[in-house]
Amino acid sequence: MTTEAFSFSLLATDGMARRGEVKTPHGLVRTPAFMPVGTQATVKAMYPEQVRELGADVVLGNTYHLMLRPTAERVARLGGLHTFMNWQHTILTDSGGFQVMSLAQIRKLSEKGVTFQSHIDGSRHEMTPERSIEIQGLLGSDIQMQLDECLRLPAERKEVERAMQLSLRWAERSRAQFEKMGGPGKGRGLYGIVQGGDVADLRVASAQALSQMPFEGYSIGGLAVGEPQDVMLRMLEITTPVLPTTKPRYLMGVGTPDDIVESVARGVDMFDCVMPTRAGRHGLAYTRFGKINLKNARHADDPRPLDEESSCPGARTYSRAYLHHLIRAGEGLGGMLLTWNNLAYYQSMMQGIRDAIEAGRFADFKAEVKEGWAKGDLPALG
Amino acid sequence: MTTEAFSFSLLATDGMARRGEVKTPHGLVRTPAFMPVGTQATVKAMYPEQVRELGADVVLGNTYHLMLRPTAERVARLGGLHTFMNWQHTILTDSGGFQVMSLAQIRKLSEKGVTFQSHIDGSRHEMTPERSIEIQGLLGSDIQMQLDECLRLPAERKEVERAMQLSLRWAERSRAQFEKMGGPGKGRGLYGIVQGGDVADLRVASAQALSQMPFEGYSIGGLAVGEPQDVMLRMLEITTPVLPTTKPRYLMGVGTPDDIVESVARGVDMFDCVMPTRAGRHGLAYTRFGKINLKNARHADDPRPLDEESSCPGARTYSRAYLHHLIRAGEGLGGMLLTWNNLAYYQSMMQGIRDAIEAGRFADFKAEVKEGWAKGDLPALG
Ligand SMILES: [Zn+2]
Ligand SMILES: [Zn+2]
Repeated sequence: MTTEAFSFSLLATDGMARRGEVKTPHGLVRTPAFMPVGTQATVKAMYPEQVRELGADVVLGNTYHLMLRPTAERVARLGGLHTFMNWQHTILTDSGGFQVMSLAQIRKLSEKGVTFQSHIDGSRHEMTPERSIEIQGLLGSDIQMQLDECLRLPAERKEVERAMQLSLRWAERSRAQFEKMGGPGKGRGLYGIVQGGDVADLRVASAQALSQMPFEGYSIGGLAVGEPQDVMLRMLEITTPVLPTTKPRYLMGVGTPDDIVESVARGVDMFDCVMPTRAGRHGLAYTRFGKINLKNARHADDPRPLDEESSCPGARTYSRAYLHHLIRAGEGLGGMLLTWNNLAYYQSMMQGIRDAIEAGRFADFKAEVKEGWAKGDLPALG
Repeated sequence: MTTEAFSFSLLATDGMARRGEVKTPHGLVRTPAFMPVGTQATVKAMYPEQVRELGADVVLGNTYHLMLRPTAERVARLGGLHTFMNWQHTILTDSGGFQVMSLAQIRKLSEKGVTFQSHIDGSRHEMTPERSIEIQGLLGSDIQMQLDECLRLPAERKEVERAMQLSLRWAERSRAQFEKMGGPGKGRGLYGIVQGGDVADLRVASAQALSQMPFEGYSIGGLAVGEPQDVMLRMLEITTPVLPTTKPRYLMGVGTPDDIVESVARGVDMFDCVMPTRAGRHGLAYTRFGKINLKNARHADDPRPLDEESSCPGARTYSRAYLHHLIRAGEGLGGMLLTWNNLAYYQSMMQGIRDAIEAGRFADFKAEVKEGWAKGDLPALG
């Protein structure tokens, strides 16, 4: 049996928006795609079958969390991350770098990599480009990320340039390790990560340099880290034209529904964000009416469902009054139902995006969803 | 349209064990029955469809919690508890008395009832036999409980007798209120509650007095409150023979799988307990191998499911290593999967009990399940 190579097919374009298909050892990923985040080998408060039924082709696993617990070696012994978390579709993993910088204690960065202490038990670890790829290989990840250095914005140009250059050198080392481990032969993909903060010429330089390297796809990192949306969108506008049209583009850690439609309009193919899952556990619902805070007392007596036209039972079957009660009472079912609703909304929006691009009406679609969000929630009863 | 009367049919007996059927406005309850606890209008960490699919005919709601939040009046405005929590099958409610005594602050008991302060916001409330029935009616409960006074054991005989006599007077007032509200005409049932602590003659006196009143069923209260199992079983042995054979018997707040089979053997028909749901959220699994603590490090590398022969995906699909990881990592899916497993085990045990009574082999069934628990968990691998 030969494994087919990782591939990306561009099926249609509409302006800068692209409709495509990524092929991995675990199936097809329809793009533009939203990847639910499964930080610790679980999309929080969801059964994996539900995540799949909503239309997700791929979920994201966090290397930093998994290397610490249950450890990559343990996951490998147990048959890999797909089997471990009961998700037999595509898995993308990050490099661990972002969480090392945001969660770990006492980090020390050098040319070689980062040493840090676990936020769980204080144990010491070293993360290098090679080790990150090794871990992602042990997990069995279909789409892997190079180790990079991601800065918070704002940051000095000099610092941004240093981190971007370091990330390029780490890109080469990551690639070498990926090939040494036979990643391409297994049909897996490795993405290089564009850095450069909010500095236009550094973004372009990073994207150009990475384009010369044989990556299966390109990530755009270091955005959605505190900068205004228009800065992020401007960076996309100058970055995506420099990237090869034949490779998928993944905007890391983004974002709101609005961020996503605007980024698709600028040529991005893949997204991930904790927002729909995290917001759900905190009583916030994403809907075609915009974001709804179920904790608000206005819902306490409202017998209407979140959205009677939703295909998700979580959105259609339960009253807002009940959701309000569950959230106020701290009941787990509240987070389960709202997470379900939120991921359903995200995936239905992605389906709408894909259909619109195919039909050559993406601009209209974008205007329509924005109009729905702007109009806001249903008026109160009575 | 006329509503059929609440009824109980005894379909088979095997020794003292009874196989029966309770008919309520929301369907049939096959007995012996285990009722999952839905304290705050939700069986914790479960979708209602799952609870039903496991074979539950009835769930329990807690009057004390619901009267405080979201309040009985609000539930009534929203169409009743069945609609509110999306459970269109039978609902049994307790009287609220037990939680008033165990959870509320600054209680004051008198002949009239109990005044107390909410554990949520300190607000003052009064609970009388009449108010308890009114609340249960507003909730739309199919099977209601009289208000009683439940003591912790051990307690002085004099104190036990006082509480038992008060509970009898409250039984009459509860019944009067239930009839005033048209409960029987709606096909609903009201159960009187046998009290008497661990004092044999007081138990008998309570059961005899209640048997003279026109209740649709009888609860046995004030047990499983700290006394050894043999004391509880002895109390059952002297109580159930005094109760009418034509009415269902509900042992409140019980219990472990062993408590349940032993109580069925002594003529009990209905049970409820938070154990399967609470234990699940704390990493404990009930199985045919007994109780398994998934937090234990011995499961960290175990690729085997909890029970490959279980009909529950939560028990069959996920490795023990994964469950161990989820519990250790504090992930909600851990509690979701173990609660699912635990309720599945309880319901499959109840089905086994019902089948065994019908087949006249309940004693054998009881010996077999006990043998399985005694043998313990699968041996460690390797
Ligand atoms: Zn995000
Ligand atoms: Zn209990």
